Amino acid sequence: MSYQTDAFNAYLDEHRDRFLDEFGQFIGQPSVAADARGVQQMAEIVAQRFRRLGADVTIYPTPGSPVVYAELGPRDAARTLMIYNHYDVQPEDPVELWETPPFEMVVKDGLIFGRGVADDKGELLSRIQAVEAWQQTQGELPVRIKWVVEGEEETGSPNLEAWVRAHAEMLRADGTLWEGGGYDEADRPMFGLGCKGIAYFELRCTGPNQDLHSSYAPMVKNPAWRLVWALSTLKDAGDNITLDGYLDHVAPLGDEEWAAIDAIPMEFEAMRRRWGLDAWLNDMTDEAARRRYISEPTITICGIHSGYTGDGSKTVLPAEAMVKLDFRLVANLTPKIAQELLRQHLDRRGFTDISITWLGGEGPARSPVNSLPERAARAASLDTWQKEPVMYPWFAGSGPMYSLSTLLDIPVIFAGCTWHPNTRIHSPNENILMRDYFDSMRFTAAFLAHFAALEA
Amino acid sequence: MSYQTDAFNAYLDEHRDRFLDEFGQFIGQPSVAADARGVQQMAEIVAQRFRRLGADVTIYPTPGSPVVYAELGPRDAARTLMIYNHYDVQPEDPVELWETPPFEMVVKDGLIFGRGVADDKGELLSRIQAVEAWQQTQGELPVRIKWVVEGEEETGSPNLEAWVRAHAEMLRADGTLWEGGGYDEADRPMFGLGCKGIAYFELRCTGPNQDLHSSYAPMVKNPAWRLVWALSTLKDAGDNITLDGYLDHVAPLGDEEWAAIDAIPMEFEAMRRRWGLDAWLNDMTDEAARRRYISEPTITICGIHSGYTGDGSKTVLPAEAMVKLDFRLVANLTPKIAQELLRQHLDRRGFTDISITWLGGEGPARSPVNSLPERAARAASLDTWQKEPVMYPWFAGSGPMYSLSTLLDIPVIFAGCTWHPNTRIHSPNENILMRDYFDSMRFTAAFLAHFAALEA
Repeated sequence: MSYQTDAFNAYLDEHRDRFLDEFGQFIGQPSVAADARGVQQMAEIVAQRFRRLGADVTIYPTPGSPVVYAELGPRDAARTLMIYNHYDVQPEDPVELWETPPFEMVVKDGLIFGRGVADDKGELLSRIQAVEAWQQTQGELPVRIKWVVEGEEETGSPNLEAWVRAHAEMLRADGTLWEGGGYDEADRPMFGLGCKGIAYFELRCTGPNQDLHSSYAPMVKNPAWRLVWALSTLKDAGDNITLDGYLDHVAPLGDEEWAAIDAIPMEFEAMRRRWGLDAWLNDMTDEAARRRYISEPTITICGIHSGYTGDGSKTVLPAEAMVKLDFRLVANLTPKIAQELLRQHLDRRGFTDISITWLGGEGPARSPVNSLPERAARAASLDTWQKEPVMYPWFAGSGPMYSLSTLLDIPVIFAGCTWHPNTRIHSPNENILMRDYFDSMRFTAAFLAHFAALEA
Repeated sequence: MSYQTDAFNAYLDEHRDRFLDEFGQFIGQPSVAADARGVQQMAEIVAQRFRRLGADVTIYPTPGSPVVYAELGPRDAARTLMIYNHYDVQPEDPVELWETPPFEMVVKDGLIFGRGVADDKGELLSRIQAVEAWQQTQGELPVRIKWVVEGEEETGSPNLEAWVRAHAEMLRADGTLWEGGGYDEADRPMFGLGCKGIAYFELRCTGPNQDLHSSYAPMVKNPAWRLVWALSTLKDAGDNITLDGYLDHVAPLGDEEWAAIDAIPMEFEAMRRRWGLDAWLNDMTDEAARRRYISEPTITICGIHSGYTGDGSKTVLPAEAMVKLDFRLVANLTPKIAQELLRQHLDRRGFTDISITWLGGEGPARSPVNSLPERAARAASLDTWQKEPVMYPWFAGSGPMYSLSTLLDIPVIFAGCTWHPNTRIHSPNENILMRDYFDSMRFTAAFLAHFAALEA
């Protein structure tokens, strides 16, 4: 199946000002998940916009921000596409560094500024507007669309997985088009077939009820030493994970996946220079670093504290010690598996005095190579930008992709291109190129067409 | 040799008010080593007081506070006694918790209040006044006295060892009477034959030049992990020191020393209750805890810090990690040995990227059991208080004792009793009992007599 691109493009031109007005309305409504500011109002705005497409829309309350769920397109379509976006944004802090008001869309020199223009209101609305343009210029949508727009992505989607599990039957689909994305530093579209999961824990150990004089060290337990010993059993000095059973859950990669990883362009020299590093960990080659970066699970000390850490010397035996660990998870690990293995591993070694506090987690998402959504995205990339995307078997970062892909056994593609290398998501002066906003509509239409037409 | 105790005691009664006036002058002169406040003036006051005993007095400048050195008594005496005291005091902070002005001696309900009444101006002046009383009631001193009064004890005596090394010949003696001391919680005089040394280091490791997103953990060195791995090679999970070569320097204890340790009364149950502990480290018995507390060297994590340690989660790979370690040293370890062994140990395991910064150190002091000063102190304790002292083979804490004992091969006794269990050294409302101030003079006289008369 193809579509009438001239008519589609003409519609975009014709409705350009209204589309930007609508974008201004989206940006003008604060919707900060961190303090729930405006999330209800934003959910309403999104629902309203969906209804103007003729969608069936439900606003699902959750313990946090509501989930806006829209279905549209023919009920008897051969294929169903899930689309994921989020309507919440990062806080505007530090607000004094913004050159324009964060919650006002400002167009300047071909750029669009405002909180959320990139992450993720630009992708969300440009996709909605693409669907409108399709309907108005092509007629019936070529697929059934199930659109999930959550409002807590920026706080780790704490309620999404439970909502998905409660509506698994409703959410059946043949593929998921993820949130969106952008160009890398060499202006190549970056797409991905998944992302690592994450589990974040705080471990604590207590000793005496007060910091003691360190002369008592031979007879009183030191919680800082306890943590050090426990940690040293999780990963050896070669940076190999030694947590009992952890690596048993890691699914091996196939040749195609390794080849895809090896093909990812990374600016190794520039990265080292930017970070002041002479070499990668363990003097790895760039090639080995790329493979390890993309493919391996991690256990990372993000922070550790105990006792006296000011200037000079203070001879204390600390009352307490704390470490923050993040586990980056690859398939088929899950946060729950990580937590259980960690508890068992520590208990087995006598570290029953170390508590583990759950601070959040998301499973890893992984799709097979050459899935329907991947092929549709590749083809749509060529149509839209005349470029092959750089295809990550998965991203080393984490996100809520797991719930709407791996959990439901739906192949997923992280694709779209509203971000550019200086787009500043999560920072002041978040911006996208005007050109990319409208290209996103063209990409969306092409994706719909290919997703409907490609062989299974 | 004995002395005329009635005459001696009568002299104390007769001169009681003047002695207390002099004490008031000592307390009234601030002499805070931490900010060098008043140390020159205090050194002058001490020197002046020595001169009134007929002593030869020299004020030796150092890079910090001066050392006041006095010699007195017959040059042809059969024995020479070194006495150590210090004229500096701890800062008066937090000053708002003092119920009387810190630098004013206040007598109330049988107690004497003021900064330094216990640590160490009370011992210093009561010993000087004892010498005066001896001279006035007994005549010639029974021994030659070499009296070292330093002014930086409260800041770790950073210049004492170099001064001692430069004057080793001048400082020859048959025994050293240390600073002073006090009663334990069961009103037993606590004496000691030495103390542990200390070495304090800060270890640092750096990674990237900024905290990175933790997704880069597979390819970028994490300095927090580096420190954890390095630390875990210094001491095993059973709390056994595994630093290469460290224990080889520890001199074994003899049966007499073990017996002396076993005889030390400790309030184990009260200590556990006060510190909220169910048990000692590794479920040791009280007896084992006492032996370990007194006899073993330590490596203690006093503080550790890296990365994000605030509330909640932050997924960073830290730029830097730091740990503060104190090593409590028993004979024949020294701070220099500890530092060299630590550097070699880390280098041997590839931890050349971990820096070691010296933050201070003092060697351990250890005297043989039944030395002349020990026997003189025991006898003087019986004379003065009709009690056997509790004799520590060494104290688990640290101090500058090494320089004036082990370094010069002079046996030492930590003895005296101006402190009581609520004496609050280093704290607001430092105080001693009036009774103990004058008893200290009696103890000093008895010690001089026995030190001169006992068999070698």
